[in-house]
Amino acid sequence: MFESAEIGHSIDKETYDKEVPALREALLEAQYELHQQKRSAVIVLINGIEGAGKGETVKLLSEWMDPRLIEVRTFDNQTDEELAHPPAWRYWRKLPAKGRMGVFFGNWYSQMLQGRVHGVFKDAVLDQAINGAERLEKMLCNEGAVIFKFWFHLSKKQMKARLKALQDDPLHSWRISPLDWQQSKTYDRFVRFGERVIRRTSRDYAPWNIVEGIDPYYRSLTVGKILLEGLQAALNTPKPKARPSSAAPLPDVIDGLSLLDCLDMTQHLEKDDYQEQLITEQARLSGLMRDKRMRRHALVAVFEGNDAAGKGGSIKRVAAALDPRQYSIVPIAAPSEDERAQPYLWRFWRQIPGRGKFTIFDRSWYGRVLVERVEGFCTKADWMRAYGEINDFEEQLSNAGVIVVKFWLAIDKDTQLQRFQEREAIPFKRYKITEEDWRNREKWDLYRKAVCDMVDRTSTEIAPWTLVEANDKRWARVKVLRTINDSVEAAFEKRDKHDKKHKK
Amino acid sequence: MFESAEIGHSIDKETYDKEVPALREALLEAQYELHQQKRSAVIVLINGIEGAGKGETVKLLSEWMDPRLIEVRTFDNQTDEELAHPPAWRYWRKLPAKGRMGVFFGNWYSQMLQGRVHGVFKDAVLDQAINGAERLEKMLCNEGAVIFKFWFHLSKKQMKARLKALQDDPLHSWRISPLDWQQSKTYDRFVRFGERVIRRTSRDYAPWNIVEGIDPYYRSLTVGKILLEGLQAALNTPKPKARPSSAAPLPDVIDGLSLLDCLDMTQHLEKDDYQEQLITEQARLSGLMRDKRMRRHALVAVFEGNDAAGKGGSIKRVAAALDPRQYSIVPIAAPSEDERAQPYLWRFWRQIPGRGKFTIFDRSWYGRVLVERVEGFCTKADWMRAYGEINDFEEQLSNAGVIVVKFWLAIDKDTQLQRFQEREAIPFKRYKITEEDWRNREKWDLYRKAVCDMVDRTSTEIAPWTLVEANDKRWARVKVLRTINDSVEAAFEKRDKHDKKHKK
Repeated sequence: MFESAEIGHSIDKETYDKEVPALREALLEAQYELHQQKRSAVIVLINGIEGAGKGETVKLLSEWMDPRLIEVRTFDNQTDEELAHPPAWRYWRKLPAKGRMGVFFGNWYSQMLQGRVHGVFKDAVLDQAINGAERLEKMLCNEGAVIFKFWFHLSKKQMKARLKALQDDPLHSWRISPLDWQQSKTYDRFVRFGERVIRRTSRDYAPWNIVEGIDPYYRSLTVGKILLEGLQAALNTPKPKARPSSAAPLPDVIDGLSLLDCLDMTQHLEKDDYQEQLITEQARLSGLMRDKRMRRHALVAVFEGNDAAGKGGSIKRVAAALDPRQYSIVPIAAPSEDERAQPYLWRFWRQIPGRGKFTIFDRSWYGRVLVERVEGFCTKADWMRAYGEINDFEEQLSNAGVIVVKFWLAIDKDTQLQRFQEREAIPFKRYKITEEDWRNREKWDLYRKAVCDMVDRTSTEIAPWTLVEANDKRWARVKVLRTINDSVEAAFEKRDKHDKKHKK
Repeated sequence: MFESAEIGHSIDKETYDKEVPALREALLEAQYELHQQKRSAVIVLINGIEGAGKGETVKLLSEWMDPRLIEVRTFDNQTDEELAHPPAWRYWRKLPAKGRMGVFFGNWYSQMLQGRVHGVFKDAVLDQAINGAERLEKMLCNEGAVIFKFWFHLSKKQMKARLKALQDDPLHSWRISPLDWQQSKTYDRFVRFGERVIRRTSRDYAPWNIVEGIDPYYRSLTVGKILLEGLQAALNTPKPKARPSSAAPLPDVIDGLSLLDCLDMTQHLEKDDYQEQLITEQARLSGLMRDKRMRRHALVAVFEGNDAAGKGGSIKRVAAALDPRQYSIVPIAAPSEDERAQPYLWRFWRQIPGRGKFTIFDRSWYGRVLVERVEGFCTKADWMRAYGEINDFEEQLSNAGVIVVKFWLAIDKDTQLQRFQEREAIPFKRYKITEEDWRNREKWDLYRKAVCDMVDRTSTEIAPWTLVEANDKRWARVKVLRTINDSVEAAFEKRDKHDKKHKK
């Protein structure tokens, strides 16, 4: 796979000097045009052999192009904050906005390669990381990103010759970094696993470019031309190429019976029972959140439901059990300008709690497969692929110890009407009801179908949906609290069991 | 994910009886049409909970449709022969031909689920298996297959109730199989990992259908309708839907230097040296093939090269070292009718040697990215995706201990001309040269590009290409033999090291 990048490619100085001015001009022009269109973010991943010119090339790009629109990011040691979050969080927070370019050193590929080369894990785990990267990049591209992946290469002989030349030169021996020495020892493994990674992740939407690094003119000109070609292709595509979704079609059910039909909407609690159970569950939650085992977890609760189903009231009862420093409530409305300049899931990733913390989402990323689907705010391909993207997202949370609890608060159509009318009648509740609520009501059946599809596709062992019969608010509130408590307890117990097993 | 299949779906007998006749007729009609078109093979994968009606449904399908066009395959215990081959070999050999339907019980999903449920491996390895299945199915669909995946489901409660009912009934308690009892113990794990598998492998081209199994009418009608709909869709597609290849584009090199340019075509051996080295390497090969470590490996040698580059002569020198029972030579020409009714790689899978054996391919699966590409015998999407498919194929061989050695015998244009002319001049060699050889020669540069792309994409650590300077036949023959010997020795040593490490 690297054979063609070990044969001594080179460009003479004359050719280089002749070609560079036009290339620079074209690159700058493409960069400005991209910035104006604000349709795509550009992500450049820099990988490969130490000493093959990674740093020099990035430096050169910043000279050739406008550095104000370029963010160079290095991901080496994780900060405390990063360590308290799922691994991908650090990449999400550094994603360039649309119209800008992010150059990522020490990116996800560097992490997985280092881990494998140094034997932290085996091929199977490497393959998991590879698939994670593939899914991430596919999603980013579907969200309009343009990804360039460069592997700067040197053959073992070239690398050794370079090290020797530097070492023998008293003026330049300081240029040899600890990484260089490490690489010279692990070269074979690094290249072997690098090949596996490249082979599996080189895709039309985010291809790898293997660039022989020995000759600076060849290397720079090659990278410049690949960038230019890719940028121009992106600029000239009428819209960011939407890849066909590979999600399975949504099935029809021949007997017409749906999950929502099976809820017992007469469930209710008497006032006394309610007050007793509510306070019991609140006390339980309070205790669980202060349990020292909570330091290894975070908690996310998602509230979705019919309009007027009582999301707000339930959230209030949850919050009432806690110290305000322990939780935050994130209401989700239409995205801001900054949020629109990022991939869909970005604004949720931003709000993921660190270890020991609890975040309540009042509406959530499920907007994509509910309101955006029903109202046509995004294409079918977009919301169809969202099921898989959301499952990936929640799996990453779960793998990092985040407990994800998801509620759909269901009321029937009559109850909704009654509550709408009450809201309109009571002055201090009137702000709670808008024209939009009435319009949504007309799409009752469409929402119903969307909810069932959502549950079918995204209720997972990792992050199951809980359907809450919410005609009776008391019943709903207690069920919500109890479900959260049960989930947290189950997570603690699972971890205890795991710890016990590994202590043996 | 299974919630909607645990709510007691049912169809009354009257509706069922009314709908079945038309369904049967339509299914039969679709089946015959499919058989006539001979464009698609149908593969039906049967999975799910024991007792959810898997067997009954398949039985019913054989009644509803023409059983002569249906092959029901059960993959339970592996035969000796299957154990001597890579794991996927057993599926390949049982693939239905185009126009026919194969129903697979105990398929790849059953294997991976059993393995994970019983703790033979962990999630990472399960994920590898999942990805393998995904790639296999994608390839099959690209080759025209229509895949149906059914998960027959019962909730834990339903399953237990069924077992209890059978147990209490003296007339039917014998119906409970050991698998049923096993399932009742492992239900939770089975469903948990089943969900993971379904979530990751439900794709538009091969979606999972989760069917609640408790009511036979509902179950049968649902499966029948899904089959019918899928078959009709396949029949009415003008051509088997070619999915866009997601292979990365082939790069251009700015200095025009290619791997083939870097071969030293003046390499040669004097006659005496040749004879000595040839006999040495032949003796070495003979010894290696009789080494008892060979019993854990198989050997595959692939010969590709320019016309008249001396493939035949080299193969002869390799074979001369061996007992004819140890090896077989497979010449690859245009595919037969049976072969054309199968996916591209099928005819090569058939020829993969079992442990201890050696197969020499005189031309190979690389025809796809060489002659078929250059001559336009397949679409660009087909040969572009072949790089990845071939890498997957060879990785499966390698994982199973098959040593894969690949040669490109390169001669320069003048040498070819000279050999063509010689062949025409010498009567007993005249059969070796045809009009086609002269036509191929005109496409010299296209083949050259195809060869370089092939090496860039498919020369892997697992199965590297060896470019052989073949202007001098002696040099080429010795290099071929030595490379085979070195590869076999390296594989033995790697295995010894591995064994030693795991004995410690």
